[in-house]
Amino acid sequence: MSEAALRALNPATNEAFGPAFVEPDAAAIEAACVAAAAAFDVYREIDPSARAAFLEAIAAEIEAIGDELIQTAMAETGLPRPRLEGERGRTTGQLRLFAQVVRRGDWIGARIDPALPERKPMPRADLRQRFIPLGPVAVFGASNFPLAFSTAGGDTASALAAGCPVVVKGHPAHPNTGELVGAAVRRAVAACGLPEGVFALLTGQSHALGGTLVRDPRIKAVGFTGSRAGGLALMRIAAERAEPIPVFAEMSSVNPVLLMPAALAARAEALGAAFIGSLTLGAGQFCTNPGLILALDGPDLERFTAAATAALTAAQPHVMLTPGIFGAFEQGVDRLSGRDGVKLLARGCVGDGVNQAVGALFEVDAATFLADEVLGHEVFGSSSVIVRVPDVATLAALLERLEGQLTATLHLDADDAELARGLLPILERKAGRILANGWPTGVEVSHAMVHGGPFPATSDPRGTSVGTRAIERFLRPVCYQDIPDTLLPPALQAGNPLGVARAIDGVL
Amino acid sequence: MSEAALRALNPATNEAFGPAFVEPDAAAIEAACVAAAAAFDVYREIDPSARAAFLEAIAAEIEAIGDELIQTAMAETGLPRPRLEGERGRTTGQLRLFAQVVRRGDWIGARIDPALPERKPMPRADLRQRFIPLGPVAVFGASNFPLAFSTAGGDTASALAAGCPVVVKGHPAHPNTGELVGAAVRRAVAACGLPEGVFALLTGQSHALGGTLVRDPRIKAVGFTGSRAGGLALMRIAAERAEPIPVFAEMSSVNPVLLMPAALAARAEALGAAFIGSLTLGAGQFCTNPGLILALDGPDLERFTAAATAALTAAQPHVMLTPGIFGAFEQGVDRLSGRDGVKLLARGCVGDGVNQAVGALFEVDAATFLADEVLGHEVFGSSSVIVRVPDVATLAALLERLEGQLTATLHLDADDAELARGLLPILERKAGRILANGWPTGVEVSHAMVHGGPFPATSDPRGTSVGTRAIERFLRPVCYQDIPDTLLPPALQAGNPLGVARAIDGVL
Repeated sequence: MSEAALRALNPATNEAFGPAFVEPDAAAIEAACVAAAAAFDVYREIDPSARAAFLEAIAAEIEAIGDELIQTAMAETGLPRPRLEGERGRTTGQLRLFAQVVRRGDWIGARIDPALPERKPMPRADLRQRFIPLGPVAVFGASNFPLAFSTAGGDTASALAAGCPVVVKGHPAHPNTGELVGAAVRRAVAACGLPEGVFALLTGQSHALGGTLVRDPRIKAVGFTGSRAGGLALMRIAAERAEPIPVFAEMSSVNPVLLMPAALAARAEALGAAFIGSLTLGAGQFCTNPGLILALDGPDLERFTAAATAALTAAQPHVMLTPGIFGAFEQGVDRLSGRDGVKLLARGCVGDGVNQAVGALFEVDAATFLADEVLGHEVFGSSSVIVRVPDVATLAALLERLEGQLTATLHLDADDAELARGLLPILERKAGRILANGWPTGVEVSHAMVHGGPFPATSDPRGTSVGTRAIERFLRPVCYQDIPDTLLPPALQAGNPLGVARAIDGVL
Repeated sequence: MSEAALRALNPATNEAFGPAFVEPDAAAIEAACVAAAAAFDVYREIDPSARAAFLEAIAAEIEAIGDELIQTAMAETGLPRPRLEGERGRTTGQLRLFAQVVRRGDWIGARIDPALPERKPMPRADLRQRFIPLGPVAVFGASNFPLAFSTAGGDTASALAAGCPVVVKGHPAHPNTGELVGAAVRRAVAACGLPEGVFALLTGQSHALGGTLVRDPRIKAVGFTGSRAGGLALMRIAAERAEPIPVFAEMSSVNPVLLMPAALAARAEALGAAFIGSLTLGAGQFCTNPGLILALDGPDLERFTAAATAALTAAQPHVMLTPGIFGAFEQGVDRLSGRDGVKLLARGCVGDGVNQAVGALFEVDAATFLADEVLGHEVFGSSSVIVRVPDVATLAALLERLEGQLTATLHLDADDAELARGLLPILERKAGRILANGWPTGVEVSHAMVHGGPFPATSDPRGTSVGTRAIERFLRPVCYQDIPDTLLPPALQAGNPLGVARAIDGVL
């Protein structure tokens, strides 16, 4: 496979800049995986406090890069300074939150069922269980969060927290940002005296790079944030391995927003304006962008639509992350514009720069939406479809037909409670997070967050890629039966030297 | 696909008996899945105490069948009465243990991150998380545990405990046993006032039945215990669905047993005799049957081998579960007998009945074993291979080459501790359970048990199919953001009416 050398591209000017990146070859990929496998047994058994200190050291090293990181990311992504400064804080905060989790040790899941030598008819052996990490993890960062979902983003932080060495496939949309962060992680590895193989960054643009990485037998799990096509390709490769491995891909979601009648009657105009604020934030380049509005037809919906139309018409264009993403957005908008029964309500202001997303708002009736699967597919960027629903039964039917989602949102007042109560079971089956009276963009990094959901929102609904439960994706339980105390891992020894929480006969 | 009607077969006589079973057609399969989906939202939200009472009612109904269940299972499987009586106790005990787990409510995983309205620069919303069940589960029971791993076995019990309706594909090797248990579950469903769709049993023998069931879009997960080929086929079907779903397949393991030098020196003869006891128990028809012995070559290993040879030569034959399993066992033994460098050490006594497994014990050197992948494949039944290992380095290399296992066993004395310490990290990477000074057959149903492990022991190393953690396979987290208290599920309401354990800002 022959490709031009990778260089960074400024999407605001279409100009390449910075050094050329040599595509890692098969030997380089294998070397990274060999080193990761060699580091695994050491890294997974260092003291939890040492692992936590390592995560904190990564955060400090990222901060120590200083403004060069922000300026580089701005040039490579077109994202504005405040957004990137906020994202840096999210990235370092995420690493420090996982450090807390690692120190507390609940993720070890220690369980002890003591021996029952006198039990009849059969004695019970001494059984002890803990979680251990899966092994080296391949992480595929996202283009739209060059810090928080990339080189040292959520997947990397949670895999390292679990005790897994990480090999990152660096995203070609922000190679210099990635290398700056990668070097920061390597400095933290060295400063903490860890084996080099704990972390590697392979920056490149070929599909072969990602495929070779996922096929490597030393890789035991994959974290991915990106497109549905990309996630499906990795799922296929992982399933076809001699040893299939789990893939945690966060892929595709239109994030339905339901405007309930009383809420709509009370504040249609305010909802319309707030909707466009969420839709156009960051050029709509969020997994949780509100791409679908559902509401009962009538004058209140007209007021909402009018307000949204006015707000979008005045909305300024935003440069998108890459020419490829911009092209796909334009294609998506054109595809929607051309479907039968779809009405274009509004576009945003047109700018004079390149790669600038001009927001798009469409409207369809429920029958059209139900008849045309394409209308429910994600268009990555500021594009949304309002569905006019004739009655509650149709609303429920429409929700049942939706694919899996990262989020579902209800705007509701007290008088909407009974209707909402009837729809919540459907939303629970469809989405990983259900919001009331907010907008799905903005994903808190905390203990109770779920950034996941049924396929195609993710490849595995049992995980989350944001929040502290993300660590659980990379762990598996091991049982120790009658193993002498001196050979047991510390968390399971009689003296509990780590002081972790342990369930004895199922009770903490 | 045309097949003769299914009837039970007595493997001790090769005689068919009992009623003919009509193969469920596509309409019957769909009807079961439709009913399961319709029951899901009701069943998953009944009070935990009601769900626990249902599991206990199933146990009581199974006991109420009385001796007919044991006699039927004896006739269909060739397993002896004490074994089946014990297995019945294990099955009902398992249901009652899951009832305790359901009542305690830890599986709900309730987490609350309270709102921080004053936080700068951005306030935090109120975030609450709980686990909900995945949806209807298809369960494929095993032939070798007609009660504990079949119709109302571990997968069914854990899926029902999680709140998932279950559609069982009844095993054709024990159709009447399955129907007796299925009727017991249906009586419990009716007695507890639950929707009929909470449980269905589809007994048949065609591959089409299982494939159609797994392809049904209403099925959201699969539990399977059986052969590697069968598990791989279901994994493929599940991955090719429009909505891929998780498959928890427990498939294949040779369960390596390491005889450490000091232990071998101290008690070679006793170990040899005990090994053959474990190997021939139940005709070796256990997932955890010890199919591979690894030891350093020398006079102590000779003593072990001599004792094992003597014990196996005197071992009585056992009737196997089905003619098909018997045939596969014979083929597996023939295959091993014919490999270069493999020496047949002993066979058990030959009986005069049909389908009788005659145990087989082989010996190879480490170089032969390392060069021939086939020698590491499972032969289901009383067949095992002793590998003579020249040195510790070769022992480690050999362990590294093994596929994933359900169990790994060490026989060790105090003087073996340092050698064991060096090998344990490899065993942790290879197996779900590590035992000292015991035999892997016999799997306790408890909180700390792991009956799982890396592929091909299972399709997903993050789960266990025995023990209370089995419930976690069928759950996924959902986050509720700013949802009004009256609309929250009880476990997350401010008043905590269920009284479940909840983590507030990550602390229980």
